[in-house]
Amino acid sequence: MPPFEVPEGDPFGPHNLPYGVFSTSGSTQRRVGVRLGDHVLDAGAAALALGSPYATLLARPTLNPLLAAGRTTWSDVRRALTAWVTVPAHREVLEPLFHPLAAVTLHLPFEVADYVDFYASENHARNAGRIFRPDAAEPLTPNWKHLPIGYHGRAGTVVVSGTDVVRPSGQRKTSPGPAEAPVFGPSVRLDIEAEVGFVVGAPSEQGRPVPLGDYREHVFGLTLLNDWSARDIQAWEYVPLGPFLGKSFATSVSAWITPLDALEDARVAPPARTHPLLPYLDDTAEEPAGYDLRMSIAINGHVVSEPPFSTMYWTAAQQLAHLTVNGASLRTGDLYGSGTVSGTEPAQRGSLLELTWNGQDPLELPDGKRTYLEDGDVVTMSAWAPGPGGVRVGLGDVSGRIVAG
Amino acid sequence: MPPFEVPEGDPFGPHNLPYGVFSTSGSTQRRVGVRLGDHVLDAGAAALALGSPYATLLARPTLNPLLAAGRTTWSDVRRALTAWVTVPAHREVLEPLFHPLAAVTLHLPFEVADYVDFYASENHARNAGRIFRPDAAEPLTPNWKHLPIGYHGRAGTVVVSGTDVVRPSGQRKTSPGPAEAPVFGPSVRLDIEAEVGFVVGAPSEQGRPVPLGDYREHVFGLTLLNDWSARDIQAWEYVPLGPFLGKSFATSVSAWITPLDALEDARVAPPARTHPLLPYLDDTAEEPAGYDLRMSIAINGHVVSEPPFSTMYWTAAQQLAHLTVNGASLRTGDLYGSGTVSGTEPAQRGSLLELTWNGQDPLELPDGKRTYLEDGDVVTMSAWAPGPGGVRVGLGDVSGRIVAG
Repeated sequence: MPPFEVPEGDPFGPHNLPYGVFSTSGSTQRRVGVRLGDHVLDAGAAALALGSPYATLLARPTLNPLLAAGRTTWSDVRRALTAWVTVPAHREVLEPLFHPLAAVTLHLPFEVADYVDFYASENHARNAGRIFRPDAAEPLTPNWKHLPIGYHGRAGTVVVSGTDVVRPSGQRKTSPGPAEAPVFGPSVRLDIEAEVGFVVGAPSEQGRPVPLGDYREHVFGLTLLNDWSARDIQAWEYVPLGPFLGKSFATSVSAWITPLDALEDARVAPPARTHPLLPYLDDTAEEPAGYDLRMSIAINGHVVSEPPFSTMYWTAAQQLAHLTVNGASLRTGDLYGSGTVSGTEPAQRGSLLELTWNGQDPLELPDGKRTYLEDGDVVTMSAWAPGPGGVRVGLGDVSGRIVAG
Repeated sequence: MPPFEVPEGDPFGPHNLPYGVFSTSGSTQRRVGVRLGDHVLDAGAAALALGSPYATLLARPTLNPLLAAGRTTWSDVRRALTAWVTVPAHREVLEPLFHPLAAVTLHLPFEVADYVDFYASENHARNAGRIFRPDAAEPLTPNWKHLPIGYHGRAGTVVVSGTDVVRPSGQRKTSPGPAEAPVFGPSVRLDIEAEVGFVVGAPSEQGRPVPLGDYREHVFGLTLLNDWSARDIQAWEYVPLGPFLGKSFATSVSAWITPLDALEDARVAPPARTHPLLPYLDDTAEEPAGYDLRMSIAINGHVVSEPPFSTMYWTAAQQLAHLTVNGASLRTGDLYGSGTVSGTEPAQRGSLLELTWNGQDPLELPDGKRTYLEDGDVVTMSAWAPGPGGVRVGLGDVSGRIVAG
């Protein structure tokens, strides 16, 4: 089908227009692309062909210059792109600048500055607490309802969807006795975490917190994120300074960054708060910063869970306000993950830890039982959100295959 | 004194030659500099003036190209620099390319990729355990002797020595009761951590661990590092995912990176190991990777502690092997901190947490008592190591002043 003729209701129609970076077999030069249906528009070439002033932002090998440009420019560029793909007069010029999605190679679309991972799903945190501290009266730690718990992860191992993930090796305990020495070998509890990643565009100054209301001035858009986790490595290492090698081997993100402007119709209020919040986190007077994203997790093509992002207790705006309240600066390309998304139902859980209750209750897949991931397993996360007039806004899939170390 | 006439025994003589990045009042262009005594040689200009092939690495605004070049080139460049500053024939050409240290502005010398902080001093870990878990029979967590505990910090807030540090605000508990809500405000327990930072030059591939013996192929050099810590913010936030806002507001490093080649005479074996180590961490057959660095911490010019780096249980080589054993890749500019350096004696402790036993036992300074840092306090860390023929190798100071938020 020709690029301009996107079927009605296509989740990647002109109402969406996510950004990525691609190359072709004919040219290994990386270029900013905008997805329309099952095609990619070479956005820089289009800007040059149409004499657009945005060529300086779009004719680049990474999204970083566009990310750095700030909210007003983001909206202006999006309006321009919308016109390019919808106004018939541009068709003749732009048609040769579209590439079939199946014919391009997609790359990590931006240079990741710092990567932070949060822990914002109350259902996930309660499940994790019940699994790891079965004797505790309260599965949530005392701070959970007062602040969005987060920690820094490894920016250098964030990879684009489609990248193979090498099973990590590391130390693990084979029984919990404190005197027993750990063993070394490939992780035997390799897990997924279904998350949404938020991409920071406009930077902020060190020493100056970013208030809740400035979230949209700094965050450009979002992506799906798989926070691969080696539970056995993590369990042994994480006290007292948090997860390290259990997470740092790989984090996968979609090849497409969906701009916040495409998700206006998906904004929802977060769940009612059970505890009063300190003023810098109190969003009762703010516009809703939750998102009604319907996520799906498949292993080897078989759907195992459908986590609802609207259930997240802490919003991306609260996470940004918290992240910077101590004066930490933001840089273009900062990425922060929502934390594992788990709904209230068993079939809405965002990790195998929860779906199999730490391996006690295996999943039945068409190709056999699963507690944790096996070599060769392909995990694919997808999502959509309600868009204008009821049409869906598709997020780019994030997919990865486990290979032996 | 003219640049070439460095007094005998100067810790920044031609046996040292640390690298930095500077600009001058006459030119805001950042340039790689090499320190000789109380002067800075414009290394790129020198390379160009002498027709050196290293001009492509040195005539740059950051050390990253040199860092990326790898061990063989690092040693070659160092030999060339040593010749430039010692062979009399070069004096006439190079003399105008020296700038008095007092007349230049020093910048963060490299772009920090990922920042990891370790916890490698047994004395520090025992002190922290005793302070935070006074009722526990064993102050070390069960994993401490089996792996070098570490976590990721915020790369974007690493600042060069001399940068003011804004006192962070955040959540803290005013009493430990679990039902009591936190309060918000400026940290009242703002602390230091005296550390050594290791700067990665040569990258490594994702999925490929770096063995112990390859440490010197990847690590270019070291710096002093002050891991500023807000103890009250940290105490409330850090369970279960580790330190976050209690650390992420600022981390200071020296303006000078001391190449490993300058520290050959300072290499020492680490303390005897009390527990057998897994093969990837077992360094009994390796060259010693500890360093005999004599550190000093001063508050407002008054020395409060002299931590000995040779007491660190885990070496930088073990930390690198651990950091990558799960397949995590290295990037040029990765920085990892040793963890707080504390000796066995009270006057060798590397944090105010330990020096004042969490505020119970204030330090007596000439300008009054200190539990934690006050606004206006200037903290300066310095260090030296034994060099060739007994002359000292100086490390660049790391200094910072606390300013109100």
